[in-house]
Amino acid sequence: MSDTVPNRETIEKAHKLIAPYIHHTPVLTSSFLNDLCEAEIFFKCENLQKIGAFKARGGLNAILTLTEEQLKNGVTTHSSGNHAQAIAFSAAKVGAKAYIVMPDNSPLVKIKAVEGYGGEITFCKNTPEEREHTVQEIIKKTGAAFIHPFNNYAVIAGQATAAKELIEDCQEKLDMIFAPVGGGGLLSGTALSAHYFSPDTKVYAGEPEGAADAVLSFRSDRIEKAPYVKTIADGLLTYLGDKTFPIIKQHITDVLTVSDEEIIQSMRYLWERMKLVVEPSGAVSLAAFIKNKDHFKGRKVGIILTGGNVDLGKLPF
Amino acid sequence: MSDTVPNRETIEKAHKLIAPYIHHTPVLTSSFLNDLCEAEIFFKCENLQKIGAFKARGGLNAILTLTEEQLKNGVTTHSSGNHAQAIAFSAAKVGAKAYIVMPDNSPLVKIKAVEGYGGEITFCKNTPEEREHTVQEIIKKTGAAFIHPFNNYAVIAGQATAAKELIEDCQEKLDMIFAPVGGGGLLSGTALSAHYFSPDTKVYAGEPEGAADAVLSFRSDRIEKAPYVKTIADGLLTYLGDKTFPIIKQHITDVLTVSDEEIIQSMRYLWERMKLVVEPSGAVSLAAFIKNKDHFKGRKVGIILTGGNVDLGKLPF
Repeated sequence: MSDTVPNRETIEKAHKLIAPYIHHTPVLTSSFLNDLCEAEIFFKCENLQKIGAFKARGGLNAILTLTEEQLKNGVTTHSSGNHAQAIAFSAAKVGAKAYIVMPDNSPLVKIKAVEGYGGEITFCKNTPEEREHTVQEIIKKTGAAFIHPFNNYAVIAGQATAAKELIEDCQEKLDMIFAPVGGGGLLSGTALSAHYFSPDTKVYAGEPEGAADAVLSFRSDRIEKAPYVKTIADGLLTYLGDKTFPIIKQHITDVLTVSDEEIIQSMRYLWERMKLVVEPSGAVSLAAFIKNKDHFKGRKVGIILTGGNVDLGKLPF
Repeated sequence: MSDTVPNRETIEKAHKLIAPYIHHTPVLTSSFLNDLCEAEIFFKCENLQKIGAFKARGGLNAILTLTEEQLKNGVTTHSSGNHAQAIAFSAAKVGAKAYIVMPDNSPLVKIKAVEGYGGEITFCKNTPEEREHTVQEIIKKTGAAFIHPFNNYAVIAGQATAAKELIEDCQEKLDMIFAPVGGGGLLSGTALSAHYFSPDTKVYAGEPEGAADAVLSFRSDRIEKAPYVKTIADGLLTYLGDKTFPIIKQHITDVLTVSDEEIIQSMRYLWERMKLVVEPSGAVSLAAFIKNKDHFKGRKVGIILTGGNVDLGKLPF
């Protein structure tokens, strides 16, 4: 695995490597949302990606850049969400075993999805310590390679390909791109792709008020934890890593926070107006843009819709 | 308005005419559904079309092919559903007035959408006679041009452009295309596009058991009404017209019926697996294919997802 910040060539290579396995997701537009925001918005629909989220990109690149030797004992990670599916899916593509540690309160639909991709699940209590401990036990027993959900340069390079496609598919230059931030894998990848492939395009992060670690870290210049954690955007609960934070600090223009009500309103626009199933975390970038739309009138704006894995029986509307 | 069955040139002209106003909707695929059906399926996502349904195509072509003289008193139609929005939307594009007759029990979300496009709504009781009578009154008073939701060759040529794009965007030849049938506007257009642009591609119709008029008409060789009308697919309740029926009779391979349970199951696959908001009528073509999948193993199949206008507060799951 690479131990330097992805450069232009790394991202291009990642894109070529994963292209046969991913969807080149469409970029869609909405007159309604353009009118509402008085801007020209281009939505990169990673909710339509394999496994229903952009995480397939990072998982694939991480696994496809491992050597046969590194892969022979399989791969492992802990995740209650989209990264679990991404690693199970990606390992299956190369015929490697995937040992997935999932909290014992994970939604059944996500457990079934991991099983569907052939992942071997070990359940544990839902604390960071228990997750970490369980993964360490698996590594000791199997020799599997650990793939961190975001603090991993190969993962970051994979996530960067979403913004790369968005930039390439928009015929006009984007003034800015909005991406959500949890651990910062997608955000740092987006920042790097903008830097290399469209250097005049600014990158903004959207973050839930109820997981406001990145905004604090961005302002204070060191990795901070959120003062409290309580949000519907369950994919964005974690804090930045020592690989994602410096990239974000260097390349991001600002981190903008949004309330759960604003997230749900944006989610509703996406479902009702664009006919897209987007999970709460996936609507955070749109919510951040809408909240600040008066500053961006007349601009060309890329917005990454990150995922669509939501329990249809538990909708917030 | 044209009074002959659309030919290749009519459809090509319609496509050029409406292209600036419509979305060129994406063709998406799903490994899950390919595996389930042991086939290669290409979904034409007209749920992502302007107004949330393919009907924007037919409405636009009908209005754009009217003369200034014909347009000067506006246009009118009756519809509780997507055609109402299509006509209001299309009339607004050319600056014409749209008088829309809607049943007084129409869903609020559809009423608001028509108003949003600037349509002038007249409410009436929800019987065919009352709708027809109210439209006639409007024509008498305003001189507006009537645009039938499906029994109109310009509408049929517009709807044909969905299958034309599907055929052009699939790099390989499709063995068959599935479309749902209500009044037959989309189905006859699909049949004509297959005939002209991919003559070896067969066209099948999906129809709800609870609105089984087309299957009877197809077998008996005359326009029949359904023995009973009761289905969740509220966009497909009507029967064929004297313009749509002959095209369907000549060019369709078969009409396959599906139950509401099968429709809801397909809808659920589309929402959960493909992250697409599709209305019940829009999932009928997939339901018909899945029900008969054993006959189509290994084939390349186009499936038109027709619309996504559904009340999020009233989901069947």
